[in-house]
Amino acid sequence: MVGAGQLARMTHQAAISLGLSLHVLADSADDSAAQVAGAVAVGDYRSLDDLRAFAADCDVITLDHEHVPNEHLEVLGKDVAVHPSADAVRYAQDKALMRARLGELGLPVPEWIDLTGSRDPADALAAFGAAVGWPVILKTITGGYDGKGVWLIESPEAATDLLASGARLLAEARVPIARELAAVVARSPYGQGGTWPVVETVQQNGICVEVIAPAPGLADPVADDAQRIALRIASELGVTGVLAVELFETETGALIVNELAMRPHNSAHWTIEGARTSQFEQHLRAVLDYPLGVTTMTAPVVVMANVLAGPRDVRPASIDERVHHCLAAWPDVKIHLYGKQFRPGRKVGHVTALGPDLDDVRGRARSAARYLMNGGELP
Amino acid sequence: MVGAGQLARMTHQAAISLGLSLHVLADSADDSAAQVAGAVAVGDYRSLDDLRAFAADCDVITLDHEHVPNEHLEVLGKDVAVHPSADAVRYAQDKALMRARLGELGLPVPEWIDLTGSRDPADALAAFGAAVGWPVILKTITGGYDGKGVWLIESPEAATDLLASGARLLAEARVPIARELAAVVARSPYGQGGTWPVVETVQQNGICVEVIAPAPGLADPVADDAQRIALRIASELGVTGVLAVELFETETGALIVNELAMRPHNSAHWTIEGARTSQFEQHLRAVLDYPLGVTTMTAPVVVMANVLAGPRDVRPASIDERVHHCLAAWPDVKIHLYGKQFRPGRKVGHVTALGPDLDDVRGRARSAARYLMNGGELP
Repeated sequence: MVGAGQLARMTHQAAISLGLSLHVLADSADDSAAQVAGAVAVGDYRSLDDLRAFAADCDVITLDHEHVPNEHLEVLGKDVAVHPSADAVRYAQDKALMRARLGELGLPVPEWIDLTGSRDPADALAAFGAAVGWPVILKTITGGYDGKGVWLIESPEAATDLLASGARLLAEARVPIARELAAVVARSPYGQGGTWPVVETVQQNGICVEVIAPAPGLADPVADDAQRIALRIASELGVTGVLAVELFETETGALIVNELAMRPHNSAHWTIEGARTSQFEQHLRAVLDYPLGVTTMTAPVVVMANVLAGPRDVRPASIDERVHHCLAAWPDVKIHLYGKQFRPGRKVGHVTALGPDLDDVRGRARSAARYLMNGGELP
Repeated sequence: MVGAGQLARMTHQAAISLGLSLHVLADSADDSAAQVAGAVAVGDYRSLDDLRAFAADCDVITLDHEHVPNEHLEVLGKDVAVHPSADAVRYAQDKALMRARLGELGLPVPEWIDLTGSRDPADALAAFGAAVGWPVILKTITGGYDGKGVWLIESPEAATDLLASGARLLAEARVPIARELAAVVARSPYGQGGTWPVVETVQQNGICVEVIAPAPGLADPVADDAQRIALRIASELGVTGVLAVELFETETGALIVNELAMRPHNSAHWTIEGARTSQFEQHLRAVLDYPLGVTTMTAPVVVMANVLAGPRDVRPASIDERVHHCLAAWPDVKIHLYGKQFRPGRKVGHVTALGPDLDDVRGRARSAARYLMNGGELP
């Protein structure tokens, strides 16, 4: 696995059961997965030489993130199986390419234009805004994540600096969102596909803070549609491994595809305890072209809450004390810590709760996560 | 963790979630856990120097097996927390000491004598056999496991060679066994105790092949007794971490303690998927003196079947093919492979099935394990 963040860390956990040992290409020996994996290479994922040296020890190459240059994946793919392939990953790397392709397939995307392709981006943006209504969304076509590279633009003038920055940008109509959903699926090279229940993802400041499985009150036909959209994307784009499709549910109950990720994804961390086969095990089964596992839920409701490190001035207790108290207060909540330093706002872990009752399960997950984040009073 | 077998391997998996990285002291870099852990020292667990060098990097020392010399654990314990302690472990290392101590506590053990302590062991054995009836069981006081170091002796003459071997031996009355059970508990240094449901362990040739949770048809008061016995032993002997108490259920429904193990144990591998907190996570929580986790079962019936490598001449398919077919045939069964070479009779992995119906669950676990073992026809 190229990259050694928390996704590689949790993939390594799953690999151990399958009798395997994940090799990781890490930026540094301190990386989340590099701390716990048996086979760690330190190198630069932007360097073809480093990637080739790493791949020489591997049967299959897969990815912890989408930042590996596509041309390198293409070259690697000539010597070793790369899953997902360069052909598929480019749709996760280039938001304009993805929107164009999904549009061709007749799949629902917001109205959008590629400003980079315009002769006069400011004019194009003004015309687009006039047509779809202000405000509009501006996004970097490559490299954005967790709310970075996304701006809400109230008028053509407000975009002047961004347009002058040289970044490749697209403009998107603002969709009247009721909530955000994610449909996560896996697909093997053989073509077997498997889905987990569609979840609701709760965002704060563009960062996912909570995932509720299954999405509460989601009508069955809408859930089916979301899964069908995700499986169709996986198949049409030739995705192998886990594919997460982030969706908007509009106020009128329609679905619109927002983003794609071709790797294990935060919106399916709940599957570690909450489904018979976790996304990490399934990702491995898929990229190794093993048959996929059953994805049945282990409880009626599963809620995952991210642990985002709190600001320094509200940290009365050490991490160790907070873990201690958290385990005491919620002996049924599972904690996952990524071995990262607690820098304010950083995603350093997650917790998962499950049970029969939504309010209860959600309350426990939130409280446990908040306690780990802020070391506050026990509720 | 001193030792790097499959118990250390699975403990490392659990450590990752807690934000930790297990350090292992391995006999060889090929050991099961050494393949997948991030911090591996290769050394001899019988060498105090090797143990001390290893312990210098650790906050807490715990054990994958009971073969570390007790005097070394005692010395180590002066500089670092050792859980379980030398004081406790000696009862798992010395079967005579254990039986004497449990007898003092009024806990049920088979009638037995320490032949090593006798002036004339042959005479003592003859008298013992005459008193309790032939055949009797002979056991090595230290070092036996998986049916090794245990003999069924029909007459005094049959023991002549064994008695002359110089091994420390005890003799035990043969108990009329209805079946074997295991009560597994965890205890923290603080004194918190937690139990899992009592299980039935199915043995073949002295090796555990299958574990059924909970033990089918076990009367509640007997299950309670088994758990009480295990918790009492943990407390009286000062055990920290996981304690497995292997028990006989006699034909008259009485319980007799057979053996103790002070570490994660084969009889609780089912807890990885079958209980909210696995024995590996619980062992870590206990030895780190964290609060223990909830042990509720995740399904009414959970069955674990060991994968013992089959004889070479019935291996029509490679391991990879067998895994492939096994995952296809039983997409809901979880496999755990230990990264070991498939030598005939060797325990190389296990599988776990769960669900509402005993016969169905047991059938699936057995079939999947048998398929991995022998690569036979799909059922």
